[in-house]
Amino acid sequence: MTSRPQSAEDSVGIVEQCTVRLFEGERPLVLASGAVLAEVDVAYETYGTLNDTRDNAIFICHALTGDAHAAGLHRDDDHRPGWWDTMIGPGKPIDTDRFFVIADNLLGGCQGTTGPASTDPATGRPYGLDFPLLQIADFVTVHRALLAHLGVEQLLSVVGGSMGGMQALQWALSFPEQVGSAVIIAASSRLNAQNIAFSAVARESIMRDPGFAGGRYLEVGTSPDTGLSIARMMAHITYQSEAGMNQKFGRRFQFGEDARRGFGVDFAVESYLDHQGRVFLSRFDALSYLYLTRVMDYFDPFADDDAAAALAEVGSPCLVLSFDSDWRFDTSHSRAIVRELERQRVPVSFREIRSPWGHDSFLLTIDDYHRTVAAFLRRVAEERPAKETRR
Amino acid sequence: MTSRPQSAEDSVGIVEQCTVRLFEGERPLVLASGAVLAEVDVAYETYGTLNDTRDNAIFICHALTGDAHAAGLHRDDDHRPGWWDTMIGPGKPIDTDRFFVIADNLLGGCQGTTGPASTDPATGRPYGLDFPLLQIADFVTVHRALLAHLGVEQLLSVVGGSMGGMQALQWALSFPEQVGSAVIIAASSRLNAQNIAFSAVARESIMRDPGFAGGRYLEVGTSPDTGLSIARMMAHITYQSEAGMNQKFGRRFQFGEDARRGFGVDFAVESYLDHQGRVFLSRFDALSYLYLTRVMDYFDPFADDDAAAALAEVGSPCLVLSFDSDWRFDTSHSRAIVRELERQRVPVSFREIRSPWGHDSFLLTIDDYHRTVAAFLRRVAEERPAKETRR
Repeated sequence: MTSRPQSAEDSVGIVEQCTVRLFEGERPLVLASGAVLAEVDVAYETYGTLNDTRDNAIFICHALTGDAHAAGLHRDDDHRPGWWDTMIGPGKPIDTDRFFVIADNLLGGCQGTTGPASTDPATGRPYGLDFPLLQIADFVTVHRALLAHLGVEQLLSVVGGSMGGMQALQWALSFPEQVGSAVIIAASSRLNAQNIAFSAVARESIMRDPGFAGGRYLEVGTSPDTGLSIARMMAHITYQSEAGMNQKFGRRFQFGEDARRGFGVDFAVESYLDHQGRVFLSRFDALSYLYLTRVMDYFDPFADDDAAAALAEVGSPCLVLSFDSDWRFDTSHSRAIVRELERQRVPVSFREIRSPWGHDSFLLTIDDYHRTVAAFLRRVAEERPAKETRR
Repeated sequence: MTSRPQSAEDSVGIVEQCTVRLFEGERPLVLASGAVLAEVDVAYETYGTLNDTRDNAIFICHALTGDAHAAGLHRDDDHRPGWWDTMIGPGKPIDTDRFFVIADNLLGGCQGTTGPASTDPATGRPYGLDFPLLQIADFVTVHRALLAHLGVEQLLSVVGGSMGGMQALQWALSFPEQVGSAVIIAASSRLNAQNIAFSAVARESIMRDPGFAGGRYLEVGTSPDTGLSIARMMAHITYQSEAGMNQKFGRRFQFGEDARRGFGVDFAVESYLDHQGRVFLSRFDALSYLYLTRVMDYFDPFADDDAAAALAEVGSPCLVLSFDSDWRFDTSHSRAIVRELERQRVPVSFREIRSPWGHDSFLLTIDDYHRTVAAFLRRVAEERPAKETRR
């Protein structure tokens, strides 16, 4: 496992973000719960070129705090590329020289797609907690509407890590004829009590912040910065492994050799957490944090015994990957997905990747990981015509 | 491993808590840092009877949120016995029919012993953040002063779990001639980055609560209830194992078969955390939480290479115990203590106890655990005279 430095040469270069209104007027978004959203805008980006046969599209589903900017730069002087620039680009595992890659911002998010901080057209005010609860299936509905807008009917693959993997799984289960394959990375089909507990405390931290103002903070001009920072800091501990944190921070002090001794930042790991908590405020909305974490808690696709029957019939292959040091969604979560898929004879490959970096590994350049994804996508691309015929 | 129900018959019965001023006037408490506390009161309890040779005393050191009420009941209608009533009592591993047991509330605590919420005699106001930073060595200083007050010179053993184990270790290292043996349970001699991180986020949660008021909340009449609750909820996740939480809560809903779906309590584990966060407020002080967690972060006794030289010379045996599902202070922490003690030829026994209950295991009735502690204490009690002679 190595960590390659980013360079401009192996990037997709300057990319543009688009926003499209996918639901409105006569065609509102009807959620799985039956609730209705009158208007839904979706932010998205694409990389690479759709081929003439329109069968080289790969859809990227992002995790809890991701966005539509998965690869490339928005401007020449961007100091950071998209969140999955390690994975997506020319010659990279999701190879933009061969594939047409689509990434959007999730429904309920806060980076261009309609979410609880958006204005409710019925009231002219932000939705706040009046925004309806979402399900992973709703994300898939919106992704599919974006695909239709782009004139893409079939996907070569749908790929996602963490909550992105949940979407890839749900999409493959619900619309297998559309999904040529699915790559489900560091995900879970069923959070356990500890997973739910961490999210529950994060949400309480946000909702109990006086600045949350019952979810009306945008109107009253406050913001639950403390609650959201604490939630993010806690989450960052769970995204890393104990060994990884020891390697990165150990007991090193932030300001020289010696301890300052006090309640301010002193250990390097405290400085890291403080920084992560602060920068998160500028890019994420507290209500989105509530809505998107709660989606995961309730996700349980295999509660329906026949959930994978349609997928098994179509035979779209799935690749399930976990990381051995990930304890937020450890390998047992991935094995449970594999077990359910195999039980219904879905063709599924599984690999536990060695990496010391915990849950965050799915965002990093880990050779074995990238090779495995690249090989899987190469295989499904090559086998595509045969599969089409078989149908 | 079993969990026996509590019964009044095997308890030490009704116990009384005492408070004594151990430092004042001409004899203030001089801390390891050089800082001085003019007055220190200490709350303590004792169980069993000191024998004529005054050599059957065992000192109990409590963990982060413990207190002097380690065993028995304060009143007939007490619905809960002391925090270590499973361990301490007639016929129990720390057998009050044989041993004289002493437990106190820690310096910096909030249950009868002087702490940051106490009144600073110099100002007539609560110390707040003017209370000096503490070290584990300071706890030992106060424990020793209490011993002197009780007319006890020698301890048969000093016993503690988690931060209590840190005190037992420090006491044995610093004053081995006083400590006949030490039982160090689920402890650490050196927190790692993840350990520090969890405490750091807990402290930030408290300090960023507007009710904290820069540590002056007692004077201004606010209280950082949100911050302290969040800290406690997060801590409770880390005190339990993933498997233990699955066993206790799984994905069970709190209110019947079905999900309520929303942001309130819905899963049973959410109800549990909410309850733990709430009840903690009535018994714990936010400033104490800051001071006592910070003590652990800086604890690093083996930074001094010869830390165990004196203990090795005296030859007081140590028992180090860990629990296989404890991930807050996992077995590697205990092994590190054992390695350091063995390196300097301190007689040390080590056992990793099987238990699914994580860090909390040290508070529970686990047969193998209790048998091991009981056998160790029996052995040191029997070998005591021989050892005295050898000196």
